[in-house]
Amino acid sequence: MDRERLFALLERFARGELAREELAEAIAVAPFVELGDARVDTQRALRVGFPEVVLGTGKSVDQIVRIARALAAAGQNTLVTRVTPDAAAALRTELPEFEYLAPARLAVLRQQPIALIGRGPIAVVSAGTADSPVAEEAACVAELFGNKVERVYDVGVAGLHRLLASLETLRRATVLIAVAGMEGALASVVGGLVAAPVIAVPTSVGYGVSLGGVAALLAMMNSCASNVTVVNIDNGFGAAYVASLINRA
Amino acid sequence: MDRERLFALLERFARGELAREELAEAIAVAPFVELGDARVDTQRALRVGFPEVVLGTGKSVDQIVRIARALAAAGQNTLVTRVTPDAAAALRTELPEFEYLAPARLAVLRQQPIALIGRGPIAVVSAGTADSPVAEEAACVAELFGNKVERVYDVGVAGLHRLLASLETLRRATVLIAVAGMEGALASVVGGLVAAPVIAVPTSVGYGVSLGGVAALLAMMNSCASNVTVVNIDNGFGAAYVASLINRA
Amino acid sequence: MDRERLFALLERFARGELAREELAEAIAVAPFVELGDARVDTQRALRVGFPEVVLGTGKSVDQIVRIARALAAAGQNTLVTRVTPDAAAALRTELPEFEYLAPARLAVLRQQPIALIGRGPIAVVSAGTADSPVAEEAACVAELFGNKVERVYDVGVAGLHRLLASLETLRRATVLIAVAGMEGALASVVGGLVAAPVIAVPTSVGYGVSLGGVAALLAMMNSCASNVTVVNIDNGFGAAYVASLINRA
Amino acid sequence: MDRERLFALLERFARGELAREELAEAIAVAPFVELGDARVDTQRALRVGFPEVVLGTGKSVDQIVRIARALAAAGQNTLVTRVTPDAAAALRTELPEFEYLAPARLAVLRQQPIALIGRGPIAVVSAGTADSPVAEEAACVAELFGNKVERVYDVGVAGLHRLLASLETLRRATVLIAVAGMEGALASVVGGLVAAPVIAVPTSVGYGVSLGGVAALLAMMNSCASNVTVVNIDNGFGAAYVASLINRA
Amino acid sequence: MDRERLFALLERFARGELAREELAEAIAVAPFVELGDARVDTQRALRVGFPEVVLGTGKSVDQIVRIARALAAAGQNTLVTRVTPDAAAALRTELPEFEYLAPARLAVLRQQPIALIGRGPIAVVSAGTADSPVAEEAACVAELFGNKVERVYDVGVAGLHRLLASLETLRRATVLIAVAGMEGALASVVGGLVAAPVIAVPTSVGYGVSLGGVAALLAMMNSCASNVTVVNIDNGFGAAYVASLINRA
Amino acid sequence: MDRERLFALLERFARGELAREELAEAIAVAPFVELGDARVDTQRALRVGFPEVVLGTGKSVDQIVRIARALAAAGQNTLVTRVTPDAAAALRTELPEFEYLAPARLAVLRQQPIALIGRGPIAVVSAGTADSPVAEEAACVAELFGNKVERVYDVGVAGLHRLLASLETLRRATVLIAVAGMEGALASVVGGLVAAPVIAVPTSVGYGVSLGGVAALLAMMNSCASNVTVVNIDNGFGAAYVASLINRA
Amino acid sequence: MDRERLFALLERFARGELAREELAEAIAVAPFVELGDARVDTQRALRVGFPEVVLGTGKSVDQIVRIARALAAAGQNTLVTRVTPDAAAALRTELPEFEYLAPARLAVLRQQPIALIGRGPIAVVSAGTADSPVAEEAACVAELFGNKVERVYDVGVAGLHRLLASLETLRRATVLIAVAGMEGALASVVGGLVAAPVIAVPTSVGYGVSLGGVAALLAMMNSCASNVTVVNIDNGFGAAYVASLINRA
Amino acid sequence: MDRERLFALLERFARGELAREELAEAIAVAPFVELGDARVDTQRALRVGFPEVVLGTGKSVDQIVRIARALAAAGQNTLVTRVTPDAAAALRTELPEFEYLAPARLAVLRQQPIALIGRGPIAVVSAGTADSPVAEEAACVAELFGNKVERVYDVGVAGLHRLLASLETLRRATVLIAVAGMEGALASVVGGLVAAPVIAVPTSVGYGVSLGGVAALLAMMNSCASNVTVVNIDNGFGAAYVASLINRA
Repeated sequence: MDRERLFALLERFARGELAREELAEAIAVAPFVELGDARVDTQRALRVGFPEVVLGTGKSVDQIVRIARALAAAGQNTLVTRVTPDAAAALRTELPEFEYLAPARLAVLRQQPIALIGRGPIAVVSAGTADSPVAEEAACVAELFGNKVERVYDVGVAGLHRLLASLETLRRATVLIAVAGMEGALASVVGGLVAAPVIAVPTSVGYGVSLGGVAALLAMMNSCASNVTVVNIDNGFGAAYVASLINRA
Repeated sequence: MDRERLFALLERFARGELAREELAEAIAVAPFVELGDARVDTQRALRVGFPEVVLGTGKSVDQIVRIARALAAAGQNTLVTRVTPDAAAALRTELPEFEYLAPARLAVLRQQPIALIGRGPIAVVSAGTADSPVAEEAACVAELFGNKVERVYDVGVAGLHRLLASLETLRRATVLIAVAGMEGALASVVGGLVAAPVIAVPTSVGYGVSLGGVAALLAMMNSCASNVTVVNIDNGFGAAYVASLINRA
Repeated sequence: MDRERLFALLERFARGELAREELAEAIAVAPFVELGDARVDTQRALRVGFPEVVLGTGKSVDQIVRIARALAAAGQNTLVTRVTPDAAAALRTELPEFEYLAPARLAVLRQQPIALIGRGPIAVVSAGTADSPVAEEAACVAELFGNKVERVYDVGVAGLHRLLASLETLRRATVLIAVAGMEGALASVVGGLVAAPVIAVPTSVGYGVSLGGVAALLAMMNSCASNVTVVNIDNGFGAAYVASLINRA
Repeated sequence: MDRERLFALLERFARGELAREELAEAIAVAPFVELGDARVDTQRALRVGFPEVVLGTGKSVDQIVRIARALAAAGQNTLVTRVTPDAAAALRTELPEFEYLAPARLAVLRQQPIALIGRGPIAVVSAGTADSPVAEEAACVAELFGNKVERVYDVGVAGLHRLLASLETLRRATVLIAVAGMEGALASVVGGLVAAPVIAVPTSVGYGVSLGGVAALLAMMNSCASNVTVVNIDNGFGAAYVASLINRA
Repeated sequence: MDRERLFALLERFARGELAREELAEAIAVAPFVELGDARVDTQRALRVGFPEVVLGTGKSVDQIVRIARALAAAGQNTLVTRVTPDAAAALRTELPEFEYLAPARLAVLRQQPIALIGRGPIAVVSAGTADSPVAEEAACVAELFGNKVERVYDVGVAGLHRLLASLETLRRATVLIAVAGMEGALASVVGGLVAAPVIAVPTSVGYGVSLGGVAALLAMMNSCASNVTVVNIDNGFGAAYVASLINRA
Repeated sequence: MDRERLFALLERFARGELAREELAEAIAVAPFVELGDARVDTQRALRVGFPEVVLGTGKSVDQIVRIARALAAAGQNTLVTRVTPDAAAALRTELPEFEYLAPARLAVLRQQPIALIGRGPIAVVSAGTADSPVAEEAACVAELFGNKVERVYDVGVAGLHRLLASLETLRRATVLIAVAGMEGALASVVGGLVAAPVIAVPTSVGYGVSLGGVAALLAMMNSCASNVTVVNIDNGFGAAYVASLINRA
Repeated sequence: MDRERLFALLERFARGELAREELAEAIAVAPFVELGDARVDTQRALRVGFPEVVLGTGKSVDQIVRIARALAAAGQNTLVTRVTPDAAAALRTELPEFEYLAPARLAVLRQQPIALIGRGPIAVVSAGTADSPVAEEAACVAELFGNKVERVYDVGVAGLHRLLASLETLRRATVLIAVAGMEGALASVVGGLVAAPVIAVPTSVGYGVSLGGVAALLAMMNSCASNVTVVNIDNGFGAAYVASLINRA
Repeated sequence: MDRERLFALLERFARGELAREELAEAIAVAPFVELGDARVDTQRALRVGFPEVVLGTGKSVDQIVRIARALAAAGQNTLVTRVTPDAAAALRTELPEFEYLAPARLAVLRQQPIALIGRGPIAVVSAGTADSPVAEEAACVAELFGNKVERVYDVGVAGLHRLLASLETLRRATVLIAVAGMEGALASVVGGLVAAPVIAVPTSVGYGVSLGGVAALLAMMNSCASNVTVVNIDNGFGAAYVASLINRA
């Protein structure tokens, strides 16, 4: 339950459309739903402003379905990340109301309208074409969390003219997400070009001593640009989450 | 030169206290001062809101002095981080107007008043007593950048009651900085307790397979709390810098 | 042969139900059965209180079947761990008396009754839904070794209220097993909440710099809670084994 | 405050030797003492049975002295680990009542008698002469926590006859602590010889690819003996702590 | 061409069974056969006593066949290691005279009789059942190189009685090969029990922080037994090769 | 567009064969073509002398096709590296004018004649048969960039006579590319035999602690031959690119 | 002996200034001078164009002096790298004709004039002030080997305007050396701006997960700019050596 | 006690020079001498042919003195390795009969004559001047164990002519020890040149990604020469020990 829904309930109660008992019941649900192997946090939106999101990796389809159903039953928008096409098909067999955003590997159920709550646009900047699944995860999640998103893709630092062609877009953003594999240098260069905070997302794109993204992560952790912080490899969701928090201020 | 100083110059010009030529001279200095082995960025405050800060590690005292002098000459507040007591003494012999904040290992020259510009307090939370140099670096830098800071120290997760005793302070903060070595679990626990962004700073405190802070860094990168981003080991300055950016929004 | 079985033989001999020669034969079997590529330790229960357990990983199905058969022939309860569904099917074709506990990936043959020998309950606490196969391995093995087990699942530290809701269960336990991937912080938090020993099991759950469980393992090794010891990644069996030893005291 | 001391207070109150207000005052002290950079947990003994212990590594002597003084003021036995000879001298200048156990690098203040509370002896087994500081830390801490300790030193696996000469001692122990650097094989061999739990302590003894103890730690984590759990490199204290918990059952 | 074959040619020439030109032709072949992507060393047996052996890993089946054919054409015994069952089938379609030793993953063509040339038996000792493919590679190669081999399998150090049961066999060997994954302790224990050189072969058997055999390799490199040297993970062939060299002295 | 093509356009314009507007149009195309998830750099040949090359790894076939089409449309020779046989088939369905060089895993479209521009031959030297895909990538790319190439394959350092048999070829080269996996020693030995620059390419050939090519890379980085520089594991393309730059001087 | 010196000897012989025996003696010295623990390569200049250079690290001062004396005695320019101030003082006590270039940590004996042999300038570009010792090593060695050098220092990518201010200098260079610690992004950005080969030198500048330069090295190995090759951390000498080879073409 | 000494005792007894009781006393000493923190193995020579050797690293001078005294008292030759000059001075104050071999960092007490027992010479081959302490440790230990030693130093693979100049020496050896840091390629090249076993000793010589010898160790483990086995970094003693065993056959 998020604050909007709580306020709506309270107003309906004030207008006499909801009995005292019904209100109590709606509020008094436990702060989590016990599923045996999962305790689903159905009131996170109320506490932190965004509903709980299900990380699809490492869970069986059955587990995903049960958790998604519990979250969906709480009446809020529901998001599952890292959903493979096969898992998406299985999920939609059980819960056909879910939509699958293939380039971003997201399964989404929109039950509430999404209002624009950000102070300004979030720019998602990516280094190469192969980084686009992670960049799209970040961009779509940021949009689902109520932000305007500007995509600036395939602007790796070995071709600075491609990046500088979008300089105005970068400078307009209130927060930036820099997505890059291989040497991960994009975060530092973008960080030096703007005054806003930059959230760096290393990706597992590369080969050899890219070490599955560790090289990019190390580069980003060592950035000489002071406005850069870092999230885990391929964690487009986490970057979008924090960017939304910052943009909401 | 920061915006305040530029505005002051413009006003003095408007009031006839400054000749056209003087104004041009003050503005027209190059965007960096060439020192041979350093190009000092004297106009960063104008561009990004905070002046350039000198990282003391890896530079000779002579280099630090020359750079600090160039920055100080630009009339702005000047900050040098990671200054050992010996380096501080040597620096102050050359530049006695610098103050040394020993617990935070910072050398500071305050030439301009510091106005409170943050939307709310920044909480600096640390896990153990041995983390205090890094925590103090973060706290002092945040204060020098115009933020109110709340210190919550020695609240490692193995004694949750010590942390929960400060829960109200944590929840009041607009941004939090979580400083921890060893297993670095503090970031996740703090992240779960608040809705604001948390910047995690792993420290090199520990022994054995703390691996000089790598264990804490890995833990923080893998945080199951989505509002956590991470900076380099012992990088209290970087955390404070980003926290200030976020708090200024 | 375990002590119970030895005592039973001795009693049968005392009652004249067993000839001297038969008794000698039953006792005099070699301390291991030579299978060429395996020396099966059929008398471990007699020596250390629990029978030898077969680690399924890395062995061919044929090897597993031959070893399991040798152990089963010694008349004791027999346990094979890390059995994939395919291996389980193949095993049960040869040895249909084995039962397959799918969520725990265990194949079990119960030939002797299991008596409750623990001083108190063992609590198995896990951080996320994806950790449940390891947690179930620990829980089922502990039960097969004669312990009462309390399961507290999906209580990762980013949602402390979910963990604290089970605080009484944790405090009642004589030993605890903390199962977590990603940042592995659960072990330290649980360790700080109880006075009993905590055996930490890192899991390979996570992505990016979880490094297949290494991040969680490092966090657990660096725990600031002094009552925590650690076993190998995903080693639910080992944790249950040691917990049983401690609980038997 | 530990339970013994609490009971004593209650009895003195019952006998009229202590006023109600004095009792309340003694009990009502906060669960920690706030020192600014430390929150000293003065009631841990009451909660978990052993008082808080100060890890000397990474703290300044001034910090150690202030924390030790706060703990000592609570009237309990006080222990500081990893105290270098220099730090010990400085500590004893401030707090001359502390005793320094040089081979174990421990500073101790004994204010309460130590009762033998263990069910049986704890055996501390070490592989080489160079491991003795860590072994002594474990042995002395175990003694200070009320256990009988048997020392079996310099019995590395390359000379099995030296280890087997002490087999009876090993088998008599209720818990064992195996301390080894280099290849760390001692833990597995000892684990195979006894039925009791073995806590393995890798040490930083070695050179080359001992990697400061990481090789030994990895070996111990991979032990084929199921009764082995592991603590951090050189963590003799932690091993003794857990061994005491197990032995107290 | 090995020395035996050369001597045979020379004798046939001496007896007039071979023309001078034929002898020259047989001897004068280049020291390698150029295949474009391979330079096959057909005279290695003449130089170092054993013919070149083909490492099957990383080569296409077509490459293996062409190289094996070139070696076979030189009239010597030919050995290909690391041959998967599929590759073996393909190889034998082209070269049906090759025999496949499945447990050792070896393809062999025996064209010359194998004489026993070793001074004494080589003992191949392995820790667990899952190590047997590597142990068999070592044992079979040693046999093909003219040694008597004693197999002592599944004698991991956690069950010392299984190892000590074969002590006489170990002590009789002129060289030993110790094959172990997981913690790799077998090498040190065997090394301490015998006076002969021990060649340690870490295997990739294990999980978690066995790190694909790195843990065992590190343990073996750090062995406190001075008679131990180490070869690469799973390199049963290399161990047998060196053992044969030593045994031939 | 490369310089040759630009000159041709200018000459046609000078001869009146091209209208002013047509010339402007041909020149004025943007420095990159925006494809959404890719910004294709169609004028790189003009800037740096070689056209942009598409790295096939990590991109979907659809992405490869779209980028290759955009590059091909610019009228220049087009190269895609790391093309699996399946991807090649799919690519050629869409763009049948592309040729597939299977041993080098390259897809090529030759639209412009290739002139020999190198000062001398480039020698591509490889250690083993399994290194040939990487060596062929280097050799074919160097040829496509206008160099004469000498192949010296399967000359690993354990058989120096095979390498020394090609010494004259090595010494004739103006640049050398040394391709090796396993211990990567070839780079140092070749480096010591010639005076020309050597570009070392570690390969992922090997097993165990070859660590996927990291061992070879480390060896090459530590080469005691001063004329060696290194590129990423398996990066035959990069080595050929730099070798071409050097050879063009 | 280098070619110039050999030609001079031959001319003197031709002019009758040198007896046949003297010429033979001068030429016939062994290709190395045996010093017991060193075999000094006094004719490398003749073979590869540059004399042997002594790496100062890891050698005792006595060893350095003996080797330097042997090289100097061959009449050529002599260079020792990585000379600490203390070692320099000791060296100059023995060999006062050596000059010490402190910022580059080089000891040099100039016995022959240095002619400019490069085709164009070599640009040495460095990221930060702390990188200057490595950059100076590269720059001075390149000058001693007969190249014109352009220094562009402290132009890290977080302040692109500082780098772009020197763009013309970068583009004029025939070879570039990019020196950077921390995230090492400078190599990719410089590589993208020029068409010439770039030799990247990671430095050990940084802290935390810079891992002593490993982070920068990994970034450079993964550069998305194809004209970048890499040498070992802090290896300014090696970069200058290869740059000289390329520039000499 | 070694066999020679035992035989001498027996002969003296046979000649009536020794009483039965004296003989019993001499033989019946325990297989180790208990020193509290050390169990000194005084009969190793009897069991394995060489007396126990004391590794000086990690032990206090006091411990070294006590152990050395116990070994010396057994009447055999006594060897301490890795003795720093300071430790040597302290040792010789207590035990002036010890001799210090500074270049090999060995302290030696010769009480028994050393007979040549090797079948042929052991060649110790080293790559660079900085490797000489490790090479000397190997060479001197091999001599003390009764072998003829040939030293071939500073013959790194980047100057093959230096190595090939000693080819006859290499081929004459019955065992070879190859000592190299940096890229460690010497082991493979030497391995390819001879038919005898080669024991490779990586050294910690190097900088940057030599990683303290790990790069050399990895190269040696991956050697494509099959006659190479490896010992720990800088372990000259271990190499000499095994070489002596092999040479004694």
